[in-house]
Amino acid sequence: MILGAGNVATHLSRHFFSRGHSIELVYSRTLEHAEQLAGEVGARSTDRREEVPPEADIFLVCLPDGEVAAHSEKLSGRKGIWVHTAGALPMNVFAPFHREFGVLYPLQTLTKERQISMQQVPMLVEGSSKTVTDTLKVLASDISDEVREVDSQTRLVIHLAAVFASNFSNHMVGIAEELLRKEGESYRLLLPLLHETIHKLEAMEPVRAQTGPAARGDEETILKHLELLREVPEWQKLYTFISRDIARFRKD
Amino acid sequence: MILGAGNVATHLSRHFFSRGHSIELVYSRTLEHAEQLAGEVGARSTDRREEVPPEADIFLVCLPDGEVAAHSEKLSGRKGIWVHTAGALPMNVFAPFHREFGVLYPLQTLTKERQISMQQVPMLVEGSSKTVTDTLKVLASDISDEVREVDSQTRLVIHLAAVFASNFSNHMVGIAEELLRKEGESYRLLLPLLHETIHKLEAMEPVRAQTGPAARGDEETILKHLELLREVPEWQKLYTFISRDIARFRKD
Repeated sequence: MILGAGNVATHLSRHFFSRGHSIELVYSRTLEHAEQLAGEVGARSTDRREEVPPEADIFLVCLPDGEVAAHSEKLSGRKGIWVHTAGALPMNVFAPFHREFGVLYPLQTLTKERQISMQQVPMLVEGSSKTVTDTLKVLASDISDEVREVDSQTRLVIHLAAVFASNFSNHMVGIAEELLRKEGESYRLLLPLLHETIHKLEAMEPVRAQTGPAARGDEETILKHLELLREVPEWQKLYTFISRDIARFRKD
Repeated sequence: MILGAGNVATHLSRHFFSRGHSIELVYSRTLEHAEQLAGEVGARSTDRREEVPPEADIFLVCLPDGEVAAHSEKLSGRKGIWVHTAGALPMNVFAPFHREFGVLYPLQTLTKERQISMQQVPMLVEGSSKTVTDTLKVLASDISDEVREVDSQTRLVIHLAAVFASNFSNHMVGIAEELLRKEGESYRLLLPLLHETIHKLEAMEPVRAQTGPAARGDEETILKHLELLREVPEWQKLYTFISRDIARFRKD
């Protein structure tokens, strides 16, 4: 059964369901969300914690990080393997309340509206015992070819790296979008550039792939850019800061 | 003829050559670079400015921004259309020295070692007269389907946006790489995530595509990440700064 009906719950439920797993119940505090997801994966839905069954093979907890412990405590009698899906939450959050528990963290940016393949997405698993770990590995390999056992501390570092690589990159495009919108242009003009930026990283490391004014020490262009940013001091600061960091990498 | 033998010179020469254009000469201050590129595109090579011919259809100047004006001045007698390929350099850099001039700026991150298609790459052109603009549009459309006329000021903003979207994103992956390397992991673990980050932007705007702790206001995870970064105060600052900016976008 699934606790949660957000982005991660939706993607994992869909994929497990399509691989033949049966999902008994979707619980969410927002009944409408629970109903919507449950409808997609042939499950019952509820917004009442009391209705969570006393036993299940897997309790898959896809709740916000801050709510996992509280729900786990309130449902401490329930028998089965308790699994959360968070990058930054240690496995032991379950330890006071359950006997068998683990983590299944999909290393991907998940948004409900998207349908994506999980086949190449790394699934980072961890279990409270070898049996649990093995169960989670088998489960994860039903939807992905890239299953890895990773402990809580390493998973946290990988999660941090993913925030830089994905969330922060996405925000850089967000800033680009704002700059272009003022000129009546769309960020979509940058899509071929963005695709090549990532494709390049298949072939070479980021430091070698780097181009642009900071990488070539082109101070004149940097000054022109800073002048353009004069009305947004935050972005001026950010620009200077990142450019300095790029130059530091270059010199190392 | 081409002045320069760097990343941009290499890519443009290759593509124009493969579309049937003849390149007479490749000039570079480093003879070895000139020879190497000239060999690829059936041209002569030189490191002596005096050998630049008195006339050519196009003088394609792919030199560092800071060297374009000086070379243009030293070669002010040469007849033909003078064209540079820089995002941040106004077209008028040529005005004191030549009669016909323009810009052909490929909006792409170019690294010699890569072979890439230019077909989808926006070519931003500008000319000193309608005739020159039209000539450059025809020329650019030989290698790309996305030819656009853009003035110098707009091109500078697009260049700035490209620096955020591509160079700065690449640096975010560079930071991720360093973090992962310390754990014995490779940044390649993040490649499926990076591809999806960009593919998502085909379907939705960056603000809507955003996920992660800053976008959902997850202060607890942010604090864990900052603690992990305690040994690199620059990255701590950068993390805080970008996370705040993401939160600001979210609230708008």
